Amino acid sequence: MNKPASQQPVWAQAAERVMARADELALISETPVVLTRVYLSAEHLQANQRVAQWMTLAGMQVWQDSVGNICGRYEGEQEGAAAILLGSHLDTVRNAGRYDGMLGVLTAIEVVQALHNQGRRLAKAIEIVGFCDEEGTRFGITLLGSRGLTGSWPESWLEKTDAEGVSVAQALVHAGLDPLKIHLARRSLTDIAAYLELHIEQGPCLEQAELALGVVEAINGARRLNCCFTGEAGHAGTVPMSHRRDALAAAAQWMMLIESSTRQQGGNLVATVGTLVCEPGAVNVIPGEVVLTLDIRGPQDLPLDTLLNALLEGAKNIAAERHVEFTAQEFYRIPATACSSALQQVLTQAVSEVQGQSLSLPSGAGHDAIAISECWPVGMLFVRCKEGISHHPAESVTAADVALAIDAFSRATTMLAEKQP
Amino acid sequence: MNKPASQQPVWAQAAERVMARADELALISETPVVLTRVYLSAEHLQANQRVAQWMTLAGMQVWQDSVGNICGRYEGEQEGAAAILLGSHLDTVRNAGRYDGMLGVLTAIEVVQALHNQGRRLAKAIEIVGFCDEEGTRFGITLLGSRGLTGSWPESWLEKTDAEGVSVAQALVHAGLDPLKIHLARRSLTDIAAYLELHIEQGPCLEQAELALGVVEAINGARRLNCCFTGEAGHAGTVPMSHRRDALAAAAQWMMLIESSTRQQGGNLVATVGTLVCEPGAVNVIPGEVVLTLDIRGPQDLPLDTLLNALLEGAKNIAAERHVEFTAQEFYRIPATACSSALQQVLTQAVSEVQGQSLSLPSGAGHDAIAISECWPVGMLFVRCKEGISHHPAESVTAADVALAIDAFSRATTMLAEKQP
Repeated sequence: MNKPASQQPVWAQAAERVMARADELALISETPVVLTRVYLSAEHLQANQRVAQWMTLAGMQVWQDSVGNICGRYEGEQEGAAAILLGSHLDTVRNAGRYDGMLGVLTAIEVVQALHNQGRRLAKAIEIVGFCDEEGTRFGITLLGSRGLTGSWPESWLEKTDAEGVSVAQALVHAGLDPLKIHLARRSLTDIAAYLELHIEQGPCLEQAELALGVVEAINGARRLNCCFTGEAGHAGTVPMSHRRDALAAAAQWMMLIESSTRQQGGNLVATVGTLVCEPGAVNVIPGEVVLTLDIRGPQDLPLDTLLNALLEGAKNIAAERHVEFTAQEFYRIPATACSSALQQVLTQAVSEVQGQSLSLPSGAGHDAIAISECWPVGMLFVRCKEGISHHPAESVTAADVALAIDAFSRATTMLAEKQP
Repeated sequence: MNKPASQQPVWAQAAERVMARADELALISETPVVLTRVYLSAEHLQANQRVAQWMTLAGMQVWQDSVGNICGRYEGEQEGAAAILLGSHLDTVRNAGRYDGMLGVLTAIEVVQALHNQGRRLAKAIEIVGFCDEEGTRFGITLLGSRGLTGSWPESWLEKTDAEGVSVAQALVHAGLDPLKIHLARRSLTDIAAYLELHIEQGPCLEQAELALGVVEAINGARRLNCCFTGEAGHAGTVPMSHRRDALAAAAQWMMLIESSTRQQGGNLVATVGTLVCEPGAVNVIPGEVVLTLDIRGPQDLPLDTLLNALLEGAKNIAAERHVEFTAQEFYRIPATACSSALQQVLTQAVSEVQGQSLSLPSGAGHDAIAISECWPVGMLFVRCKEGISHHPAESVTAADVALAIDAFSRATTMLAEKQP
């Protein structure tokens, strides 16, 4: 029996290089101990330079675009061929881990490095982009890098300011970029044939399935609501159970319904009550008002909205039975982003080849692929991360998993790039 | 058919007097707009003086005892006869209503006034006490007046201080009392045959039953616990429902169990979760820890403890099923105070005579009768109050209900005092 490809020395070496480069990038931080690297900072430009060097070593032509993305192109058999775009982001949250974003860029470089080492050209070009801002840490707006490529920056973004009052426009100038040239980052639709993003899972599914890799079916849509049950406060000793209009008991009944309905509906839907405040909040007073939030997410908008409506209907019924009031206001909504089924198929084949089986799972967190999907088909490959932890220094992946990931990423990219346009 | 006794002019006039005197006492306050009258204040002594005048008008011999209770005695047929003691308290919470406590003293005076008007003596004497401190507003210790009569002041009470650092001992001296003579307030067991207290219900049961009066079966025992569910915080988007250890969902399930088990057990038991704090408390984070309180009360200790144990057992089972931790610490416990069945019988007969039927109900709040029951049999009569509101300026009773109450109170007292010792 052949050795699995991922245990071949080439991928193991590539993985070691990725781990070392992730460690090196983690040192490019505005604070010495904890990793923080934000858009248009000196560290951003420094990281771009380092990544550019690695791209160049992989035989790529390299440029920084007008919003600050670092880009590389590995030409196809014919000059000017449409490209398979690989990418993820190089910015971080404050006190970040070293793989969220960076792993997708570093593994993409290895995919190209392997082709370059073999002197191999494919029908399509391969491009890599290290997006400049996905997290939104500095200006509170997200996906600035990927929305540079799609040309969908709103006018208002240039005026957004950071905590020190510096605007995006001022920060662009300070970084040597021109706010009037943002539109030049836009890529024409025919430039790119497909987008693949490799990312850590940021959840526990792969770990619990004992698999290194999985294929994303969709990036979850989300709705967030502020909800309130209003009953009647009363003396905990003198009001009999049968006369109560207990807002917390109503909320508890609803939380049970949320959990059971969401489990029953399946389909990778999740619903969470993350905050709950109980008024007046005294040990001997029946709660008169409970304010709580509902966060509900799922890979498809229709089942998500169906479940949400059922939960709100359920809350109204519970309120009516208990003679309390219920209100809910949605304050956040993002639609689900479907991954291309053709790209899911290619990724699933690649993953199955390297680990014997694949797993299809939703992405609970947002990614650059959300913006890119506005213009091009997107596919995502997830890599197992320790205990599902992300946005934290404890973020961790193994070199063995990264070797498998590069192998699968390389297979999928090659399959796509070998096809004639 | 005879006019119901309570509609007889004598009780209607007595009720009008009680309402007027309650209004007058409400003006004796440390603050002009809201009623606050605390132990050993100038207002306390002033209220005692006014009540003493009314007792004197009712033909009573009057004295202030060594802890500051105002006391009156209406002699029996034989001098030195054992007394039926009627009473309640004259102190208030801050921003109080005008009936909680005072109504019991003022109606008791009318009971004696009626006998005095008829020149009627009974086998037993009738005594009235206006207790000096039931609420514990000033020094944070309660039932100081009634525990003066039972002789159960702990040594430590003299050193307790108010918000300005004035000790009980200093305040006694300031009010012209002698801290070394506290023990003189103690009454011998044979002085008193029984204690009756009339009080507003402080709950909604009589109002909902459309009855003016009810008879207390017991003053509820209570237990209070600090409880905690500890699960695991996690990303609201990336952790599937089946992998969650959601502390708030566990708490919600327990709250449902608390409500259903308490309702099912019946027996006038009540259980309340009045406070709940959810950590980390972010809209997009699965709650890792929930701290909540349980307040559980009932008229008998055994069913109360049985229910409490069942609820704690239930919490442990829920925690085990959900792979979360549960802990609970009891921080407050007061045993139930049973009312004497003989006195309940007498009160029930009196109430049935005046309103055609009676209602037996527990007292959810504490009363002077708790302390008095250590030495003498106690009985309590409840008067309907508007919307069950107490400890608030909106506290309200009707003159018609008070007329009925005085009638019933008078009948019960006479029945008891007519018996030979």
